[in-house]
Amino acid sequence: MNKNILIIPGDGIGQEVTTWGKQVLETVAAKYGHEFSFDEAIMGHTAIEATGSPLPDETLEKAKASDAILFGAIGHAKYDNDPSAKVRPEQGLLKIRKELGLYANLRPILLFDELLEASSLKPEVLRGTDILFFRELTGDVYFGEKTRSEDNTYASDLMNYHRYEVERIARKAYEAARTRNKKLCSVDKANVLETSRLWRDVVQEIAREYPDIETEHMFIDNAAMQLVKNPKKFDVVLTANLFGDILTDEASQIAGSMGMLASASIGDGTGFFEPIHGSAHDIAGQNKANPLASILSAALMLDIAFGLQEEAKVVTQAVADTLKAGWRTGDIANAETPSTHLLGTNEMGAKVLEYLR
Amino acid sequence: MNKNILIIPGDGIGQEVTTWGKQVLETVAAKYGHEFSFDEAIMGHTAIEATGSPLPDETLEKAKASDAILFGAIGHAKYDNDPSAKVRPEQGLLKIRKELGLYANLRPILLFDELLEASSLKPEVLRGTDILFFRELTGDVYFGEKTRSEDNTYASDLMNYHRYEVERIARKAYEAARTRNKKLCSVDKANVLETSRLWRDVVQEIAREYPDIETEHMFIDNAAMQLVKNPKKFDVVLTANLFGDILTDEASQIAGSMGMLASASIGDGTGFFEPIHGSAHDIAGQNKANPLASILSAALMLDIAFGLQEEAKVVTQAVADTLKAGWRTGDIANAETPSTHLLGTNEMGAKVLEYLR
Ligand SMILES: CC(C)[C@H](C(=O)O)[C@@H](O)C(=O)O
Ligand SMILES: CC(C)[C@H](C(=O)O)[C@@H](O)C(=O)O
Repeated sequence: MNKNILIIPGDGIGQEVTTWGKQVLETVAAKYGHEFSFDEAIMGHTAIEATGSPLPDETLEKAKASDAILFGAIGHAKYDNDPSAKVRPEQGLLKIRKELGLYANLRPILLFDELLEASSLKPEVLRGTDILFFRELTGDVYFGEKTRSEDNTYASDLMNYHRYEVERIARKAYEAARTRNKKLCSVDKANVLETSRLWRDVVQEIAREYPDIETEHMFIDNAAMQLVKNPKKFDVVLTANLFGDILTDEASQIAGSMGMLASASIGDGTGFFEPIHGSAHDIAGQNKANPLASILSAALMLDIAFGLQEEAKVVTQAVADTLKAGWRTGDIANAETPSTHLLGTNEMGAKVLEYLR
Repeated sequence: MNKNILIIPGDGIGQEVTTWGKQVLETVAAKYGHEFSFDEAIMGHTAIEATGSPLPDETLEKAKASDAILFGAIGHAKYDNDPSAKVRPEQGLLKIRKELGLYANLRPILLFDELLEASSLKPEVLRGTDILFFRELTGDVYFGEKTRSEDNTYASDLMNYHRYEVERIARKAYEAARTRNKKLCSVDKANVLETSRLWRDVVQEIAREYPDIETEHMFIDNAAMQLVKNPKKFDVVLTANLFGDILTDEASQIAGSMGMLASASIGDGTGFFEPIHGSAHDIAGQNKANPLASILSAALMLDIAFGLQEEAKVVTQAVADTLKAGWRTGDIANAETPSTHLLGTNEMGAKVLEYLR
């Protein structure tokens, strides 16, 4: 198989972790006789520093021309505490999502048995949890009109949805539910928001096309609670952009750490694969970040973008083997981890490559 | 002390639990020689059934004339799955919050040692947690303009904030932080939302008036994660209406159950005290609901509305004593709870009264 893959390391630890996702892809190509060619592009703070724009045209063109994109992370504290900054790293990410039509963000909450103890949740609460989030990614209050009064006394963001936006992601989520435990939970705030009432209306309609799937509707506040109380009750979770952002970060604690979670953003064109963690500037450049989320993002690319299920499985297995052998980065270590098994980003990445070969 | 208290039981289990909050207030009055007189009014589904309106004028008038309000819960499944219903129970609650100017919703996450094991979180993660949420309650996407296109293909809700709305709740939160551990975490989504950037701008400004308080700004997705990962790191949490709704429900799992959490909504006039749990129609009328959140709401009323700190403490102590003696409702029981100590709503309420007397 011949594929062009674009690597966008982005900001902070994005640089360090993405190199391992890429090496995993190279190793898979060598092992299975695929031809993966790689190009690289800039985005976010890194791109602002270099070009003034968080998403340079050249990056967007390369993205559109590639078969799949492996992305790192975005953001910089410099902008976070400057509420009046006009140009921001995150604009690059939001724009590429919109331009590539990446309306569906899949976030599987993959639980490795070895990490049951790394979570703040009790192992018996976690054991058996397997959730697949479908987060809408190109609509909602993220993309509605924003205003700020001249005198800085007022600001607004428009939350909105069109029926077709809800329909297309709902169908994708229902299709996925068919290949899983046949349960779908749609999360909204229909007791307060008109947008949510439209959302629920559409989901109820699509649900009728999938009578074999058990549909549940849940308010976001309740969902945020249930996810901690009893995560096992969820199978496929379908939700809007903002609610999905919140719930999936929360759900990262089920997997033990944000450093473990991969995501796939898909739509009508090129797929985009990235860890759900951020740029973590506090630990950037220190060989501390967990590369597993980037490696698992590469696995999602193999599976979803290229249909290489076997190769994807082998990568996931290499991660499982690494964990089973006791290797840990700081974020997934605990008091019992022997210091000999505590690894940096590069050592952890190299371990996974070993198991993969 | 002479006070007029309005009881609004509302819907579902609201009826059953509020009667115990009220009896606690009566018992306190008798014990300390206060004169509390009570009136009752309807709201929500109950009020729609009786009058067609979720907040009848008479209820609003009584509310304005009272010294404090003890509320139960609101909502009914009938409306939840009917996205086109024009009249909804929740409108009653939103309207009374707006009409009474209840812009600050205080939600203390009170952890009773006896319930450490009732949570899905590990006891060592929980122990020592003590968070006070300040949720803004009369602005945000809850109250902005809503639209729905005639052909039902589009819906919107306007998220917005005025500077003064952020200022007044920020001041209240900072004042509270001064009486606690002097840490305040403001939660927003300033990397995406203009409303959040205004929010952060204002909080940064108010922060300068409180140099003795350590201020942190956190994105909502990160906060939803940190709350599970390490709840101890929070002291006062200040946030907008929607984010506060989500975070406080999530935080209920720290206290072991939604059935344990009380809240105080305050502003310029009459204060409003209510459990954070909902109407739970699935268990309504079955003597199963936990009355402690209503009882603790009564304690918040004594403390915040009437300045009766001693009386409030005695009520909270009676709840602690009840738990210490091993009495549990279903939501806070676990496998080790002997069946002889598993109580219904009424038996649990009566136990607290015993300890109170
Ligand atoms: C960086 C930010 C704009 C982004 C989002 O909110 O979508 C991130 O949190 C994510 O979840 O991918
Ligand atoms: C019932 C609902 C409108 C309400 C809210 O979202 O504010 C409830 O969830 C709460 O937290 O008080």
